[in-house]
Amino acid sequence: MRYDLAVVGSGPGGQKAAIAAAKLGKRVAIIERERKLVGGVCLHTGTIPSKTMREAILHLTGFRQRGAYPDLYRNKRQITMDELRRKLGQVSRTEWEVLQDQFDRNGVDVHTGEASFVDRQTLRIGGPGEHYLINADNVILAPGTKPARPAHIPFDGATVFDSDEFLDLDHIPRSMVVVGAGVIGIEYGLMFATLGVKVTLIDGRPNLLEFCDREIIDVLVYHARSLGVTLRLGEAVENIHKLDDTSVAVELASGKRVVGETVLFSVGRQGDTAALNVEAAGLTADKRGRLECDENFQTNVPGIYAVGDIVGFPALASASMEQGRQAASHAFNQRFTPSDSIPYGLFTVPEISMVGKNEEELTKDCVPYETGVARFSEIARGQIVGDTTGLLKLLFHRETLQLLGVHCIGDTATEIVHIGQAVMRLGGTIEYFRDTVFNYPTMAECYKVAALDGLNKVRLTHTLPTPAPLTSDAEKPSAAPIAPALVAPTVDVSPAPVI
Amino acid sequence: MRYDLAVVGSGPGGQKAAIAAAKLGKRVAIIERERKLVGGVCLHTGTIPSKTMREAILHLTGFRQRGAYPDLYRNKRQITMDELRRKLGQVSRTEWEVLQDQFDRNGVDVHTGEASFVDRQTLRIGGPGEHYLINADNVILAPGTKPARPAHIPFDGATVFDSDEFLDLDHIPRSMVVVGAGVIGIEYGLMFATLGVKVTLIDGRPNLLEFCDREIIDVLVYHARSLGVTLRLGEAVENIHKLDDTSVAVELASGKRVVGETVLFSVGRQGDTAALNVEAAGLTADKRGRLECDENFQTNVPGIYAVGDIVGFPALASASMEQGRQAASHAFNQRFTPSDSIPYGLFTVPEISMVGKNEEELTKDCVPYETGVARFSEIARGQIVGDTTGLLKLLFHRETLQLLGVHCIGDTATEIVHIGQAVMRLGGTIEYFRDTVFNYPTMAECYKVAALDGLNKVRLTHTLPTPAPLTSDAEKPSAAPIAPALVAPTVDVSPAPVI
Repeated sequence: MRYDLAVVGSGPGGQKAAIAAAKLGKRVAIIERERKLVGGVCLHTGTIPSKTMREAILHLTGFRQRGAYPDLYRNKRQITMDELRRKLGQVSRTEWEVLQDQFDRNGVDVHTGEASFVDRQTLRIGGPGEHYLINADNVILAPGTKPARPAHIPFDGATVFDSDEFLDLDHIPRSMVVVGAGVIGIEYGLMFATLGVKVTLIDGRPNLLEFCDREIIDVLVYHARSLGVTLRLGEAVENIHKLDDTSVAVELASGKRVVGETVLFSVGRQGDTAALNVEAAGLTADKRGRLECDENFQTNVPGIYAVGDIVGFPALASASMEQGRQAASHAFNQRFTPSDSIPYGLFTVPEISMVGKNEEELTKDCVPYETGVARFSEIARGQIVGDTTGLLKLLFHRETLQLLGVHCIGDTATEIVHIGQAVMRLGGTIEYFRDTVFNYPTMAECYKVAALDGLNKVRLTHTLPTPAPLTSDAEKPSAAPIAPALVAPTVDVSPAPVI
Repeated sequence: MRYDLAVVGSGPGGQKAAIAAAKLGKRVAIIERERKLVGGVCLHTGTIPSKTMREAILHLTGFRQRGAYPDLYRNKRQITMDELRRKLGQVSRTEWEVLQDQFDRNGVDVHTGEASFVDRQTLRIGGPGEHYLINADNVILAPGTKPARPAHIPFDGATVFDSDEFLDLDHIPRSMVVVGAGVIGIEYGLMFATLGVKVTLIDGRPNLLEFCDREIIDVLVYHARSLGVTLRLGEAVENIHKLDDTSVAVELASGKRVVGETVLFSVGRQGDTAALNVEAAGLTADKRGRLECDENFQTNVPGIYAVGDIVGFPALASASMEQGRQAASHAFNQRFTPSDSIPYGLFTVPEISMVGKNEEELTKDCVPYETGVARFSEIARGQIVGDTTGLLKLLFHRETLQLLGVHCIGDTATEIVHIGQAVMRLGGTIEYFRDTVFNYPTMAECYKVAALDGLNKVRLTHTLPTPAPLTSDAEKPSAAPIAPALVAPTVDVSPAPVI
């Protein structure tokens, strides 16, 4: 069989690559180990089941309205893992069917079996015995990742889990130690803390989620602590060993010992490339099983691309889909403008989302920015849904008022971030938010409150005398007059009233 | 006392007018009947309490996840009105404090007492006895509305209610008749149907919510029926009379009789202008107590403005705020660009939101539009939160692909509509959604799915032969070639692959 494109792996990146190519009229094959695994890690052990379980936990514990109705919900101790899992199969199954249907409608051939390279245009499909070959002018590799399982960790799927097994937990433990406070570790840790589990988060890095805004992470840490989470940051794990059937000890290099009923080991994921025989195609995976590629996601072998978690950060389903589309477009010489503002969504409790630059980046780039902040407690919707700790922070250029970054934590953060994303991508300034009517009461109102806060700060800065430069370098932009955008604005920011 | 501006009424319109003027350095007075009523109908009997109760109902009935967890929630019959009201006082109080604080910080004088005109620049504040006068160069009237209470309706606050009294209901009735299926009637009707109350909605108009997209209303009607709601449209109410302490009969002109334990009469609201003595200022209210004004919300008396519910449609808090800002800007000669795309948000079950044009308007204006639709059941987030009937519909120009309207029903509709609003206001096309990365899994993803659907339809239309015009009028735009925007797009809509 000869194809224009073969895609290995049917997770978010592979799917979108296959569909995009098929829509161009190409003959496309997609290869997945087993039919029931179509959809990849995302659908079966990752994003979808974990987000479904998160929603179940928030629902069953009455988390969102716990302030007003602490007594009316089921006692957390009565909730069972089976209840938490009740919707997982149904949601995954529905998404699986949607996906199969998409492949069918677009004429994508789904092959099942282990894929491995014979040469750069030939893939062998099948086990050690029965197999067949397919040829493809282009190959997009989207095999995904699997949890790293170091040999010295006593994984047993009963007390010590990797993140793929974790959903199979047979009961809700009283205590849990999460080793590795990356996105997966934090998401599960906070989810279970919400259930009343005593959680300890351990990580070697000194700060949580370094790629996020610090103020946002401070709110997350505040929440984590209020849920009883213990943070052990900057700590190296030396050893993990079982004490008995219901307790595991995690020994830290600092001499501390943390004991829990369950351990989730979520340090790193490994590219799932071992069976692919990439060497036959002229490729080499690094020691974490990952493949290098260029800005079009093409590897060093022309016509072979790599997308999704296998290329590393950000390893988000949404980004992988974009990479898949981009690789397919490049393979068939289609113009593709990669999105310049990919949002990040973390389904922690509470959720976090952001798009654009953060303060650290802008400071490093010497961009003169200002911030505008809205707290959910200030807006009616925050009060109504019982989220009074969330916040939205806008970063904008002090002179042009261009929106540069949006950082949000709290209920619906992953949805409302897209409002700021649209304004940013379409070149709007924060005056857009001042001049726009928002539904009331909604969380989206935060944009208006934050913009007014930011514009007020700029106005205050503007009315201060320009400081004399410390050096005689009069060409420094900081000594230049305020840009015209600020001098003739409409009502709220006018430096002086005009009657 | 002499002011630059006096504002009568401290609801959303009055608040924003006062704050906007104060920020311009003006001396501003705001007048409210009693201090505890600061915030107006919105805060005390309207928007805020009803949305807070709606959230309580969705929460306590476990509505959002009722498919997966029908058994784990409290029986609806056990829920009491006191529980539903538990957060009302708290939310209103917090918002009241936020508002007082805003007035303080901005130096707005809050006067309490009944306001009435002495002449066009003089207001008398106080009751029939003790009172004082204030002078103001400009006056903004934002007195709000109160429910119309026709003399022949036997209101008693026990079985027959107007919409302001309704929140004081002492128990959840078994059945309820809502007379007047406007926004207020539908919102309360669906809320109580969610609690298991047998609801009948009666309206003289043949269709619900004529200003909404028909497809969206069809979904709403489907939901209402699945909650057991009976719709009696195109029916005139002749008479309402109590049968006994627990049943009221509503007699229809068609001869039908609808009996319920409780009747909510929500036909129309009356401008609260009776005490204002507007004639002394040279104004005349119409028979519904409303005031006429121009596009700047100025009445026919220069320097006197009217904003908020008193000017009629749309009578939404968000629109009133905008009107207040606009009136204040006009009074003090500030440039103000009125928003060209005010969203509508209805907190029905499920919620509805829209912005821009609807199909009826575009058809009337002969704009060649196409639609792109995404169903919540197609996206992962819809499955996860248990909303599988919601939909998002985009209306866009068939040739320029300009976004013209966004119509949405379902969970978070009132939030995600602002994404489309930003794209519309900033002049984006639906290609924006195709080329943008959205967080996964979120409801916002619907924009991408809907855009791809729409672009596919346009591509199909494009590949059909152009029909021969029925007349020889070759200048008709429908016979013109497809606009360039469509000929050279990027990947997904390419009419033919280019290798």
